[in-house]
Amino acid sequence: MPHALPDPALLERLHRDLPDGCVVTEPAVMAGYAHDEAEWAPHALPVAVVRPRTAEEVRRVVRACLDHRAPLVTRGAGTGLSGGANAVEGAVVLSTEAMTAIVRIDPLERLAVVEPGVVNEDLRTACAAHDLWYPPDPASARWSTIGGNVATNAGGLCCVKYGVTRDYVLGLQFGTGTGDLVRVGRRTAKGVAGYDLTGLLVGSEGTLGVITEVTLRLRPSRPPEHTVAGHFASVVDAGRAVAGVAAAGVTPSALELIDRHCLAAVDAWKHMGLSADADVVLLGRTDAPGAAGEAEAEEILRCFEAAGATWAARSTDQQEADALFEARRLAYPALERLGPVLTEDICVPKAAVPEMLGRIHALAARHDILIANIAHAGDGNLHPLLITPPGDEAAKERAQAAFHEIIAEALALGGTVTGEHGVGLLKRAGLRAELGPEALALNRAVKDALDPHGLLNPGKVLDGPGGARS
Amino acid sequence: MPHALPDPALLERLHRDLPDGCVVTEPAVMAGYAHDEAEWAPHALPVAVVRPRTAEEVRRVVRACLDHRAPLVTRGAGTGLSGGANAVEGAVVLSTEAMTAIVRIDPLERLAVVEPGVVNEDLRTACAAHDLWYPPDPASARWSTIGGNVATNAGGLCCVKYGVTRDYVLGLQFGTGTGDLVRVGRRTAKGVAGYDLTGLLVGSEGTLGVITEVTLRLRPSRPPEHTVAGHFASVVDAGRAVAGVAAAGVTPSALELIDRHCLAAVDAWKHMGLSADADVVLLGRTDAPGAAGEAEAEEILRCFEAAGATWAARSTDQQEADALFEARRLAYPALERLGPVLTEDICVPKAAVPEMLGRIHALAARHDILIANIAHAGDGNLHPLLITPPGDEAAKERAQAAFHEIIAEALALGGTVTGEHGVGLLKRAGLRAELGPEALALNRAVKDALDPHGLLNPGKVLDGPGGARS
Repeated sequence: MPHALPDPALLERLHRDLPDGCVVTEPAVMAGYAHDEAEWAPHALPVAVVRPRTAEEVRRVVRACLDHRAPLVTRGAGTGLSGGANAVEGAVVLSTEAMTAIVRIDPLERLAVVEPGVVNEDLRTACAAHDLWYPPDPASARWSTIGGNVATNAGGLCCVKYGVTRDYVLGLQFGTGTGDLVRVGRRTAKGVAGYDLTGLLVGSEGTLGVITEVTLRLRPSRPPEHTVAGHFASVVDAGRAVAGVAAAGVTPSALELIDRHCLAAVDAWKHMGLSADADVVLLGRTDAPGAAGEAEAEEILRCFEAAGATWAARSTDQQEADALFEARRLAYPALERLGPVLTEDICVPKAAVPEMLGRIHALAARHDILIANIAHAGDGNLHPLLITPPGDEAAKERAQAAFHEIIAEALALGGTVTGEHGVGLLKRAGLRAELGPEALALNRAVKDALDPHGLLNPGKVLDGPGGARS
Repeated sequence: MPHALPDPALLERLHRDLPDGCVVTEPAVMAGYAHDEAEWAPHALPVAVVRPRTAEEVRRVVRACLDHRAPLVTRGAGTGLSGGANAVEGAVVLSTEAMTAIVRIDPLERLAVVEPGVVNEDLRTACAAHDLWYPPDPASARWSTIGGNVATNAGGLCCVKYGVTRDYVLGLQFGTGTGDLVRVGRRTAKGVAGYDLTGLLVGSEGTLGVITEVTLRLRPSRPPEHTVAGHFASVVDAGRAVAGVAAAGVTPSALELIDRHCLAAVDAWKHMGLSADADVVLLGRTDAPGAAGEAEAEEILRCFEAAGATWAARSTDQQEADALFEARRLAYPALERLGPVLTEDICVPKAAVPEMLGRIHALAARHDILIANIAHAGDGNLHPLLITPPGDEAAKERAQAAFHEIIAEALALGGTVTGEHGVGLLKRAGLRAELGPEALALNRAVKDALDPHGLLNPGKVLDGPGGARS
């Protein structure tokens, strides 16, 4: 891990401008802030880790970095999967872990104002007490923070019906690349005053500003869901069931795919007694109220059966249904126990889901790599997980080759190189292929306009002076 | 109306680069392209009007304007209310009226690809044939175009439940300020590859690019709506009913306010036999399926009664309900028949709706101005309409003073200066007040990054060399 020598004047400035305990320089502690879950991507030991508690303290950090030309890498819980929070050489890492206040939940306006370090599930719990719901639910919801969710435009299980993080961000306060604190967006239901800088910051992975406060739109709590489970003999059959649900005009509140590798890994870890006699399990849910929910659940069941499910049924046992979704959420950490995991995150048109799953299957065989599959199948958002035995460098190389081929296949099918995890470091080559030179130049122009000194998370998303070319 | 002398070389270039019939220079014809519905705002006669039929022809227009340093003002149907499409001196006006193809409607992916000149209602009709629905429904839906809707991030009646235009734009093709054609966004359900340039272009009022194609997200057709109508003795009572509906946790599919001035004007024009014995009418709708819809309609009725409705009932007659909503849509053109109308478009927190309506009422009395009110009340999006007798210049001045005071009151209540009509020319001072210098500087930086030559609709939204300071 590279480790640049810190500028003593920068460290002195940070210690002077921030309260005691905010600045960490012990290498052993800083090592825990060197990268997110994308340890396959390059990272370095930061020169300092700062844990500001207020927006004003964030502003001071930005100004210190600006004056001393130190790259600033902002980090939430570090659950990112693309290397967006990996430290670059000479960087100050700003962790939002001390900014955890839920400032306000307003039931009438249906909005919440929160600091960036609030954990997604803590917000959801707080909202539930007001009979309100914050929909975005990445699988990391129990650990990941709202600031990180906003920075990556996180998705999740319920996106198929309720959209992604950007759909819920009304306004932001953030530290700019020129050391100001600025508010954008609004607290009203509608508003078109000026360019949508709020939406622009969402998903910008810390490259356009350091988020210090988020105003979120909430929804009323929803009725209990009906769950339908189906077993399939192949990922391709399951893919046909997904396309069938879309064609039937149903909008499920979740439509998840888990293959037997994932189920087996979760079972080996948590002993949940999950059935692994199917090659693939599809989990469908609907939260339409009353009789409409009944009808949608029946329609999902019919689609599963029509696509050739070896077994399919509506779950009458809520605990059983919850266990299946819990297995979905635990798939990633469960697989990590088997060895290094390279996580893919492509999104293809719904009609292309069977074809894409088939191509992934063929790629796994060709590269002699274990590829497990979880997917927000109803969105066409697939997460092939490339698993290599610990210490097997040759397998790691084959996995990286397969990773890039999956991206190329997704683009060939009209898809995108990243559905919800972000570009970070791992998808920069894919981004260039997807956007083409003209759109890439517009992205670069926006970056240069809002971060004229190249201070903010340099080298992420777009290539830049602060990061190695992927 | 100012009229700059055209650069003969520019006209020659346009005639050479575009097919016969695309370029119009007859002053009498061009006069119809000099302004949108905001005739109160400054405007000029264009030096040429061009009506390209393809994206490539749009690119040629942009390049010609670039080479000859002529401002380029893009225009849909001209139904805008803020002057965003008003011609500036020396401008070429690009009308999208010849780009009306619905390229594709894809029921499985639930998306449509359209050219910018497609009329909103034509798209809705085409979608309905596939059992699909494009929700954004500005009152101008029968005339306004998708390109204009996208450029202004148009709202409408169903936003209270279904959001605004930006929520439905997946991807765009547009001509850039440097004369390229570029595609941004995606055709998949999710995607986070690069900055959200699609969302940035939406609502940018032609100042960041010339939209040549739009990929729109669609929804399945929805169940029939239940309608609830209520009569109130004052706008303030009606405002309390609106806040009551929000507090009850109901999400209506529309919640519209129409005052007696509007009803009387529509009746005088269309002889619809509308009741005008109430001071204010509220129209609530719900499209929740089955019993849930019944329950929501009852809850809306209860809220109307609790707020002191003088009469309230669920409409059992679909024709009667549709007539009431038709009156809502016709309110603006009906009032225009009475004299020049200055249209406000503020949005305040829902809790502030009664207070804001009360302040508008007081302002009307103080300035001796007739202010009619229509409102997307469930969103807090109010449209006070300031009407002056034809030819009464003193009244016009009083109206303009009231216009600015309404904006100031909306900001004081935590609202925005424009909920859905856009900044154009009329709201530039309000925008400055709302954003403050730092956020304004970020807007300017984005504009300069994407339109480095100041070619695209200069002086709109932000002050600029191409437009007078408002």
